[in-house]
Formats: sequence, C-alpha cells, structure tokens
Amino acid sequence: MKSFIDVAPTSDFPIQNLPYGIFSTQPDGPRHIGVAIGDQILNLAEIADLFDGPELKTHQDVFKKCTLNAFMALPRPAWLEARAKIQQLLCENCAVLRDNADLRKRAFVAQSAATMHLPAQIGDYTDFYSSIYHATNVGIMFRGKENALMPNWKWLPVGYHGRASSVVVSGTDLKRPVGQTKAPDAEVPSFGPSKLMDFELEMAFFVGGPENTLGTRVPIEKAEDRIFGVVLMNDWSARDIQAWEYVPLGPFLAKSFSTTISPWIVSIEALRPYFVENPAQDPTPPEYLRHSDPFTLDINLAVTIRPEGDTEDHVVCKTNFKHLYWTLKQQLAHHTVNGCNLRAGDLLGSGTVSGPEEGAYGSMLELSWRGAKEVPVGSEVRKFLKDGDEVNLSGVCDKNGVRIGFGECRGKIRPADI
Amino acid sequence: MKSFIDVAPTSDFPIQNLPYGIFSTQPDGPRHIGVAIGDQILNLAEIADLFDGPELKTHQDVFKKCTLNAFMALPRPAWLEARAKIQQLLCENCAVLRDNADLRKRAFVAQSAATMHLPAQIGDYTDFYSSIYHATNVGIMFRGKENALMPNWKWLPVGYHGRASSVVVSGTDLKRPVGQTKAPDAEVPSFGPSKLMDFELEMAFFVGGPENTLGTRVPIEKAEDRIFGVVLMNDWSARDIQAWEYVPLGPFLAKSFSTTISPWIVSIEALRPYFVENPAQDPTPPEYLRHSDPFTLDINLAVTIRPEGDTEDHVVCKTNFKHLYWTLKQQLAHHTVNGCNLRAGDLLGSGTVSGPEEGAYGSMLELSWRGAKEVPVGSEVRKFLKDGDEVNLSGVCDKNGVRIGFGECRGKIRPADI
Repeated sequence: MKSFIDVAPTSDFPIQNLPYGIFSTQPDGPRHIGVAIGDQILNLAEIADLFDGPELKTHQDVFKKCTLNAFMALPRPAWLEARAKIQQLLCENCAVLRDNADLRKRAFVAQSAATMHLPAQIGDYTDFYSSIYHATNVGIMFRGKENALMPNWKWLPVGYHGRASSVVVSGTDLKRPVGQTKAPDAEVPSFGPSKLMDFELEMAFFVGGPENTLGTRVPIEKAEDRIFGVVLMNDWSARDIQAWEYVPLGPFLAKSFSTTISPWIVSIEALRPYFVENPAQDPTPPEYLRHSDPFTLDINLAVTIRPEGDTEDHVVCKTNFKHLYWTLKQQLAHHTVNGCNLRAGDLLGSGTVSGPEEGAYGSMLELSWRGAKEVPVGSEVRKFLKDGDEVNLSGVCDKNGVRIGFGECRGKIRPADI
Repeated sequence: MKSFIDVAPTSDFPIQNLPYGIFSTQPDGPRHIGVAIGDQILNLAEIADLFDGPELKTHQDVFKKCTLNAFMALPRPAWLEARAKIQQLLCENCAVLRDNADLRKRAFVAQSAATMHLPAQIGDYTDFYSSIYHATNVGIMFRGKENALMPNWKWLPVGYHGRASSVVVSGTDLKRPVGQTKAPDAEVPSFGPSKLMDFELEMAFFVGGPENTLGTRVPIEKAEDRIFGVVLMNDWSARDIQAWEYVPLGPFLAKSFSTTISPWIVSIEALRPYFVENPAQDPTPPEYLRHSDPFTLDINLAVTIRPEGDTEDHVVCKTNFKHLYWTLKQQLAHHTVNGCNLRAGDLLGSGTVSGPEEGAYGSMLELSWRGAKEVPVGSEVRKFLKDGDEVNLSGVCDKNGVRIGFGECRGKIRPADI
C-alpha cells in the first residue's frame, strides 16, 4: 500500500504507521489532532466530517479537540474505524483528498513547520519494571548476585506510581535537578545538583477505551481493548538522589523533574505485524496474568548522546523491546486486578528496557556499571550524563519491507539552578 | 462573630470555618461550588457577582465552575479576598444576603439535600510519611527496634507518588481488593481477597496558586502561597498485598483501590488560630527545609468503626495532627526542590498520623500490633477490618470557644468480587 503523499524510504511514517499526535503551527497557537505521514501532518480537524462510519459519525467532535483524550476514550472499534478511514483517504488510489487541492492545502502541514505537544492530558502515570535484564543488573549492583531479583519479581509485574505533571514532550530541555544525596561514607547528606544524571530507555503505552469503574478489573482477555498505542519514553533519573530517598517508599524526586515522551502515538493496529512469541515465564504466573497470544513487540531500540557543541548523535545502546519479560496486557491486567480504575490518557511505562548483552543496557547506570567503566560517546567518554548532553531515543519496526518508526524522543540537560 | 444562619454549637461549620466544597442537588445533576455554614451550603455561583474586590472582580467566573481548580489556581490574595467577602456576607449584621429573601432562596441549600463530590480534579496525588510515631511503629514491626527509622527519615520528608484516579469522596463505598499475597512460610503466593484490610488516618492538603514552571522550585518562604486548604484522608491499605508487592519500588495496588477524602476543604486562613510551635527537629534539616514560624496544626483527630448492622460509630483511635514531624511547608518545599511542578488541585497527604500512646495509633496495623492483639469495637473486636465495617475520620480544632471541624470522611467496605 502506498500514499499519494511522498514517503522517503527512511521515514518513520509510511501509510502503514499513521500515528496520532497533537500539533500547532505556532508554538502557542491552537492545538490540533494530527496524523504523521511522511514529512507531513494530516490535520484531522479539517477532515472530521469524513469520519462517517457507524462508530464515528456521531463522534466527529473528538477530532476537533486539543488533546487525544476524547478519541482515546471511545471503544476500540472506533479506533479501528478511524485508522481504516485515514489509511483509505491517504491511499494513492483514493481521490477524495488527493484531488481536492483546496482541502489538501488546509489539511496538510509540514512537520518542519509544526510544534508538537503532549498527545493527551495524562491523568495518572505508572511505571513498571518489566525487563528482567535491567532488574537483574540493578539488583546485582545494589544487593549482589544472590539477591538480584526480589522474590516477587517473577510473580507479578512490579510497578509504581510516577509523577504525571512532569511528563514532557520530545524537544523539551530539562534542568539538572538539585536535592539531597549521601555518599556511602559520608556522615550526613549533602545538598546540591545531582552528580549521577541518567537516562532510562523505556516505551510506554497510552490507555484508551471507556474507563473501568473503580472496583472492577479488566480481565486479561479484554486488556487489548484498553491499549491505545505506544510511545518512546526517557525516564530521566538522578541516581544519587534516588539512592538516598527511595527507601522504603520508592523513587520520588529522583524522577519527578522530567520524563520525556515521543509525540507520536503508534497504534496497536500499526504494530500488529511486529508481535512475536512471548518470553517463557517460569514460574507460570497466576491465572489473571496468563495469555497465550503473542503480545511481545519486536521493536529495535537505540539511545544516542550528543555532547554540547557536537553535531552528531552517538549511539550508546542498541536493544529491542522484545526483551520485556511482562507483556503490556499483563501490566494492564495486573494494574486493575485490585479494582483500580484506568482512564483514557493514562500512561503506563515499561521500565528500562535492557537486553542480555552489555551494549544493550538501557541506562548509563548499567552501561558504566555504576561508574566503574567509561562509555565512549564520539570523541568523549561518559559514566553519567553531563550538562549540555542531548539524549535521543529511537524505535523502529522492520519486517517484510515495511518499516515503521516512532520519531524522536529528545531532551537536553541544562545546568542546575543553585 | 456570628452568622444570621443558625449554627448549632456542635456544628463543624461556624462562620469562622467556611470550607469550600462541590455539591449538587441531584446526585447526577450539575455541580456547584459551595461553602458550608451550619447545616446549610452557600452556593457561590449564585453570588458570584458580589465578589467585586480587586483580586476577584475580573475572575468571578471561577465561582461558576464545577470544580475548585480555577479558584484554587488564583494567587493567595484572591483566596483571602474571597474568604473576607463570604464572611462579611454571612455575618449577622450584613443585610445583603440576610434581607434578600429571593437571593437567599436561590443561594442556600440544606446540606441534607445535597450530594457532595470531589472538590477538585486531582492532577497528581502524593503521600508523605511524616509521623515519626507511625514510621517508628511500622519500622519496629518490619525491621526491629534497632532499624526502625530509615537513615533518610529525619533528613527529608519521605514521600511517594500515589494514584489520583482512585481518590473518592466521603460516602463512597469501596470493594475489598483482590490480589497476590504471600504468607511468610508459603512457598508461592496466593491469589484472593485481601485478608488484612486497614484504614490510615491522614490529613491532606490541596495545592493552590499559579503553577511553578517545571524546573523551578518553591522556596519554603513562599510555600504558604501554594497551600490552599486541608481535608481528612483515609488512605485505605491492604497490608498483605502491600507486604508482597512493595519491594523495591513502594506501595502500588495495596493502596490504589480507594483513597477517601472529606468533601470540605478547610482553608489555611480558617486554621490560622490553631497553629502551634513546630516539633524540634534533630538533626537540623538542610536549609531549604528550615522555617521558624509555627506551621504545626493542633487538630484533634479520631477514627471510628461501625460494624455492619450496628447503629453506632465506635472510637478506635484518638490522636492529634500536631504529632506530625514535618510541616506542610516542608513537604511542599521538598516536593519542588528538584523543580517538580505542582498544579492547583494536586493533593499532598500527610502519611498516617499516629501519636505517642497506644490509643493514638492511626491504623489497625499499629492498633492491633500486626494482629497480635484485639481492638474492641463496640460489642465486637477487630484486628483488621471486616466486610461491612464503616470507617469514619473526624477532625476538630477547638480554642477560645471557637470550634471548627472537617465534616465526615466515611467509607464502607463491601465484599470482594472474586
């Protein structure tokens, strides 16, 4: 399938992708829902009246909102109908848009001329800890090889509540946080800028569909109805603040200064060709977490660092999303098993995605093995991140000649205010 | 000062209180901002045009919203002006409302005829752990006397992110959650309803004022500008789920099934007469956490349980909010020291408020000492909560003949769905 819009072979956004995002043509101007195609954005507000199928014809207003929440909150059949319609309208042999010069002029915006915003109002943000390689690496560093994985880790997808207000979109700079830290041999804590700034390579999914009432769970057979789509996520972490603050209630200020996501939400429908067999789980988890359909995503992930003044992104990590032990369905079913209500626009992070080999670790903490080794970054080296470092994450699915990607997930560290 | 509205001597809501809440006259009807006075509610939407002072005359629309967020987001001088105006209008010698029969009819609603709702859309909910007695009790039970308090506890107000979507208003029933638990001697975890259901007696404050931009902190001298007002909070906890899931990232499903708050937000201005000296802090915390003005609240707190079929609430705990080690200002300054942005409507919980004596413990976990003793509840006994138990929290300030209270914070446990 091809679009009448030119799509470069290296583009993340062919007609098979069609991710949703929120854009404006002026940085502070009105925001619209758009779909990425090649280097263009299709403004759905301009073609809202073309969504005339049974699921959407009475809900065309959702395409005229300034966030995706209302569209996401529709049931899954509405998402499928929207995708089919957009794909049809963008197809090279469909005349509706292609041959309507006036509508084309109104409905398409160059990505280079647009500012991207957070795709949704995020009600709650949860972060899981679902890579066994990451959890094991961190466990070895902090508790030794014998106690690397906590006893609960293979029985349930461990997760915790994160901070929703500090989730920002790709391209937003962040300040190095200040806070309390305590060196192991120090008598008392010190106060100042974090010295151990880190990225965490993650993916996250946005929840969609009608909210489950508080007190009712989403069974794993229905979990897919609540998974709207996936983004890249950098869960920036201040390791020294984290080490001092996190007992016994978990990470807090070490994470809540910024969490960067990519602006384009890639739908599960677009990702369907890239599902692969789920990893074997031993022990077998409890029944509410069991499903046999493949829901593990084969997505090539990479992290780059560009030091201040450098003109190139240097790869420091290459891994794959398929290394996740727990599936997105399992995360969602677990999250609601106690009756917790998930709302459209909620964001659920995967946890750092590390692979089994050294170059596949998804954080500087692991790549530098807690500062024991230097990681080459172009002509420089790093143990943790420096001011001026710009980190980018990328994700690409590639199969049978079709390549879809996630766009950029970029952020630059500014010096601390002190 | 007296109101022309009758206020019974036992009422929580004399003219010195004037808490804000959201009510409707039909359960699913339109929601309005109200102020409690005696057994009545003053509907601010009906008198919005009377807010004609310099801070509010161009913002009268905030009183016509269905949540308090817009009003809370105004700067503190606007809150003070609103309170002064409402107090003036309700005063026995002010004719404006008193003598306008038509307006009185429109503007007052009996509390008995109203349904209360969540006062604000809660963007993020954070829970602290600021009672030294509670932290010590829990520490002794789980780690022994020698390691009761974690090394960081006296250096910073330990806190964690909670779940915003499951915060509910007083009067909302909750279902006993199901989940994974593991007895210490069991080989593998089991799945089923929680057997160790608990309440946690807390108070919480709503954040107000203009948002601090991400990356900028709120210095402790300015913290009061961001503290809108205080409610009671029951941070329901499933202790057996918590014990199994919480390492290493903190409580998750053990709390996110329901958190109950009282509907009326009592402003800091109303609470001002009840500030007392802050507790001595040793070691002296870092500079960003130091303030010498009294900001510790003398609020008498109690917890009652009413078993199914019983007609009375039975007191199981009496304590005082002044037992908090960290002040609300310290909590807020700490929360933003890394640049985390707080938005109007965010909710910050105190953590369980326990006093030094046995009857002053704010949870069944402590009252029954992890199930080692029975707690009398009327003609019954409890170690943890049973289905059908209705728990209520109360808070009362009483000084110089003026008594202000927080209303009810009530919730009843329904059996689990399994």
